[in-house]
Amino acid sequence: MLYVIGLGLGDEKDITLKGLEAVKKCSKVYMEAYTSLLSFGHSSNGLSALENLYGKSITLADRETVEEKIDIILLEAQSSDIGFLVVGDPFGATTHSDLVVRAKKLGVDVKVVHNASVMNAVGVCGLQLYRYGETVSIPFFTETWRPDSFYEKIRENRKLGLHTLCLLDIRVKEPSLESLARGKKLYEPPRYMTTSTAIEQLLEVEESRGESAYNEDTTCVGFARLGSEDQRVVAASMKQLITYDFGPPLHCLVIVGTTHPVEDEMLQLYAC
Amino acid sequence: MLYVIGLGLGDEKDITLKGLEAVKKCSKVYMEAYTSLLSFGHSSNGLSALENLYGKSITLADRETVEEKIDIILLEAQSSDIGFLVVGDPFGATTHSDLVVRAKKLGVDVKVVHNASVMNAVGVCGLQLYRYGETVSIPFFTETWRPDSFYEKIRENRKLGLHTLCLLDIRVKEPSLESLARGKKLYEPPRYMTTSTAIEQLLEVEESRGESAYNEDTTCVGFARLGSEDQRVVAASMKQLITYDFGPPLHCLVIVGTTHPVEDEMLQLYAC
Repeated sequence: MLYVIGLGLGDEKDITLKGLEAVKKCSKVYMEAYTSLLSFGHSSNGLSALENLYGKSITLADRETVEEKIDIILLEAQSSDIGFLVVGDPFGATTHSDLVVRAKKLGVDVKVVHNASVMNAVGVCGLQLYRYGETVSIPFFTETWRPDSFYEKIRENRKLGLHTLCLLDIRVKEPSLESLARGKKLYEPPRYMTTSTAIEQLLEVEESRGESAYNEDTTCVGFARLGSEDQRVVAASMKQLITYDFGPPLHCLVIVGTTHPVEDEMLQLYAC
Repeated sequence: MLYVIGLGLGDEKDITLKGLEAVKKCSKVYMEAYTSLLSFGHSSNGLSALENLYGKSITLADRETVEEKIDIILLEAQSSDIGFLVVGDPFGATTHSDLVVRAKKLGVDVKVVHNASVMNAVGVCGLQLYRYGETVSIPFFTETWRPDSFYEKIRENRKLGLHTLCLLDIRVKEPSLESLARGKKLYEPPRYMTTSTAIEQLLEVEESRGESAYNEDTTCVGFARLGSEDQRVVAASMKQLITYDFGPPLHCLVIVGTTHPVEDEMLQLYAC
């Protein structure tokens, strides 16, 4: 049996009782360490907080492990209970669908333990979840790579008066181009996009596209460390948020569509 | 302090450790009993399973209690720790934003404990959460009341190739019209819309509107008891799903947009 267990967003205590029971049954426990970050996932302190709580050692599975060694994990799961821990909910990110498909093909039973994810926890700002349109991802722009396909999606959402959740780029364990050229992988330090960078890039794209999807006066909500004790939520115009320091990652951003009165009242609680 | 605590979707063990700690601290615990249903929320067995686990008695707060007596609950929360339990995540439904706004106005601190909600747990079918458009609600049609504003929303989502989550009507503790006329409230038995009824109504509206937003061959995914041990997930055409018996509530429905190959592979696992 493969247990795919959502850990929620904050710390080790955001696991559900059901999730914890499943972890305790498992003979081996992996934790994905690439689609997302938790305070407890990326520091040795944090990881040992999890291990202490679970009474199990945890093997961190980075992008390479999951892509290259997943079949080994799935073979283990054919004959014993294996846990695969995922920050947030197991189906917030693409890769875990893939894991389930591969498991089923190998005849491995899969049990999913759900939890909160950024996709629903953004509801805390008071914008109704059912009034969001398509979610977009904002990638780090480089000198030569400035993909802006998010722009049309935001434009379409805003035409319909819908809110847009912007997921901001995370670069963890990326091999440096230089090291790849030398045939030996060396990794860049991890990078997490801030709301400031996201808004800069958004405004740059609006400037070049000029289709008035949004502008510097458009109301947004910035989030940092959503779901954790020190989360920060601030509602303000793009212009104001661009200079706001949200502190450590993860950040995300919502571009606000048309609002209902109850939504407005909630946003006022988070005004800059 | 007012703790607004998400219970997740399945049973009493879907609460998080953080949520359970908060409940144990509270001098009084309420549970909302109107926006949603859980096996444990609507049977006395289920409620006592919660009470046993928490070591607390729980006061069920139906629609009237929340609307009429919320200020009493909030006054209690000014001087002691009060828990307000919510099926799913606290911000899946409108009313809890309202609760937070009213709490803040009375100077009551609010802590939110997130959990899984239908808005993210539908990810289990393999359709990517970021490719959903606006969520719609399908109300029970009556002889004289057949609101179809969901139709345009689905049409717009489908134009953009997006999936549509349809939340299906729940009628719990609705006063009967007859009893209201007599000046004494008597309640209708609870009703939960099935996927079959939802699809019938959807096709009826397509028939009268005729704008080809979808048709009986459109692929959908039906869900029942999402997140619980006996959940059922089935992907098929509307025509096929209309005759499929998903069993007890709650049901919900996703109208599938354009799909990516990984999404297709996952849907095949759930094919009829």
